[in-house]
Amino acid sequence: MKQLTVVKIGGNIVDRPTDLEEFLKQLSKESGPRVLVHGGGAMASDLSSKIGLKVNMQDGRRVTDMDTLKLVTMVYAGWINKSIVALLQKFGTNAIGLSGADGDIVPATRRSPYPIDFGFVGDVNPEDINLPLLESLLGRGITPVFCAITHDRNGSLLNTNADTMASSLAIALSRDYSTKLVYCFEKEGVLSNPEDDSSVIPLITRGSFESLKESKVVSGGMLPKLETAFAAIENGVSEVYIKHALNLNNNKGTILRP
Amino acid sequence: MKQLTVVKIGGNIVDRPTDLEEFLKQLSKESGPRVLVHGGGAMASDLSSKIGLKVNMQDGRRVTDMDTLKLVTMVYAGWINKSIVALLQKFGTNAIGLSGADGDIVPATRRSPYPIDFGFVGDVNPEDINLPLLESLLGRGITPVFCAITHDRNGSLLNTNADTMASSLAIALSRDYSTKLVYCFEKEGVLSNPEDDSSVIPLITRGSFESLKESKVVSGGMLPKLETAFAAIENGVSEVYIKHALNLNNNKGTILRP
Repeated sequence: MKQLTVVKIGGNIVDRPTDLEEFLKQLSKESGPRVLVHGGGAMASDLSSKIGLKVNMQDGRRVTDMDTLKLVTMVYAGWINKSIVALLQKFGTNAIGLSGADGDIVPATRRSPYPIDFGFVGDVNPEDINLPLLESLLGRGITPVFCAITHDRNGSLLNTNADTMASSLAIALSRDYSTKLVYCFEKEGVLSNPEDDSSVIPLITRGSFESLKESKVVSGGMLPKLETAFAAIENGVSEVYIKHALNLNNNKGTILRP
Repeated sequence: MKQLTVVKIGGNIVDRPTDLEEFLKQLSKESGPRVLVHGGGAMASDLSSKIGLKVNMQDGRRVTDMDTLKLVTMVYAGWINKSIVALLQKFGTNAIGLSGADGDIVPATRRSPYPIDFGFVGDVNPEDINLPLLESLLGRGITPVFCAITHDRNGSLLNTNADTMASSLAIALSRDYSTKLVYCFEKEGVLSNPEDDSSVIPLITRGSFESLKESKVVSGGMLPKLETAFAAIENGVSEVYIKHALNLNNNKGTILRP
C-alpha cells in the first residue's frame, strides 16, 4: 500500500512567522505524498477586536454567527491558507490551498441547534469525504493544504475543528494509503508535567491513555486532541504522532499506537 | 477543438447577493467546461475603513502595502472566493476556488518599483500559466474559480487586476481550447451613452474601437477593459463578450471581434 502523511499544524505555530517558515521548509524535505491541515491562530481574534466584533459565547463556547463565519473564512481560507501555499511554492513544494467546499472534498453537517445553537459549525463524517479529486492531486505530486472551513452542500460555509478535519482526512485516505497522522504544535509532545518540556511521554496506547485520564496526568485541551487521535487509529490510520512543529523530520515527540 | 468559456464577474455584482446568486445559477446551467474569475467588490474597502487601514495612493493609484495585501487576500481569496464556491456547489456545479499561487497555476512578476512602487502588485504573462493541472481539473468536470491574487514563486502573494487575470487565463487556454471570454458586470454592455442602458454597441472591431476612442464615445474604465479584451482576441481567444451578469445565457450585450 502507498504511504501517505497527513500533517496538522497548530495555530500557535501559524502565529510565529519564523517557526512557520522553518516548519514548511522541513515539510518540503519530506518525501512521499502528504496533506497539510492548518489551524487558525490569533489573527482571527485580533481582527475581531479591531472591527469590534462581539464574541458570542454559549455555555462557555464560541458561537460562529454570520459575521464570525465571514471573519474566520477570510483569515483561515484567505490569508493563512494562501500565504502557506506561497511559502511552500518557494520551498519547491507544489501546494494547492483548499477549503472543504472546494471540489466538494469535505462536506459537513451543520451541528444541531439543540440544546445549544453554535451557529455555522460543521461536523465531518470521514465517510462523506470525496477521495477521487484529492487522490488525483496527490498522484500529480501536489500537496493539498486545507483550512478547517467546510460546507453543507446547500450554499453555507461551516467552521470546523482543525484537529478533527485532519483526523477525518486521514481516516478517509487510509482506505487507499497506509496513513500516518502527525499533529504538530508548539510543545514537545504529550507532557506528563505541562511545565516541563523534558517530560514527554514517548508512547501512549489506548490502555495507557485511559490511565493517564484517570490519574489526570493528561487534561484540558490535550484530551479532545488525544480522543481524536485514537479515533483515527481505531478507524484505519496506522500511527499518530504528537510533536513540536520543528521536530517534524526526527523521532522526538509522542507516538500513539492501538 | 474543444470549447471553453472564461467568465469574469465584476466586483459590483459580487456586492449584490441576489444578483450574484442569480448569475451563479445561470452559470451552472451553461454546458461545457468553464473557468470563473471574480473581482473584488466593496468588502475590501469597507473592511479597510473599519480597521482604520490608511489608503496609500501614488500618482492617483492605490499602493498594495503588506497590510493591504493581507486584507485583499483575506477578502478575495477567503470570503468571496469560498462563498462563490459554496453557492456553485449548491447549484450543482463542482467548483474549486483558487488563487494563482495554488498549484502554481498563475505565477506573476512583481511590478517594477520604478518610477513608482505600487507594492505587492503582480503582472501576469499568459505564457507562464501552467495548464496541465488546470486542464486536468476541467477534464474532471470541475469549474475553477479564481480570485485575482497571484504569487511571485519566491513566497510573496501579489495583487493582480481581475480583468487581465481573466484575459491571461483565456489566452493561455486558447492553446488547447476554442476559448470564449465573457466579461460580466452591472451594465448592459459597452454603451455609446453611459446614461442610457439601451445604447449598447452590439459589435466592436479593432477598427471601430479606434474610432470610438478618438471620438471619446468610449472612455474611462471601459478603455483598459477593451484593450485587455482586444489583447485576448489578438492572442488566440476566439470571441469576447461584454455584458450584464444576468444576461450570461442570452445574446444581449456587446460582442468584440478582430
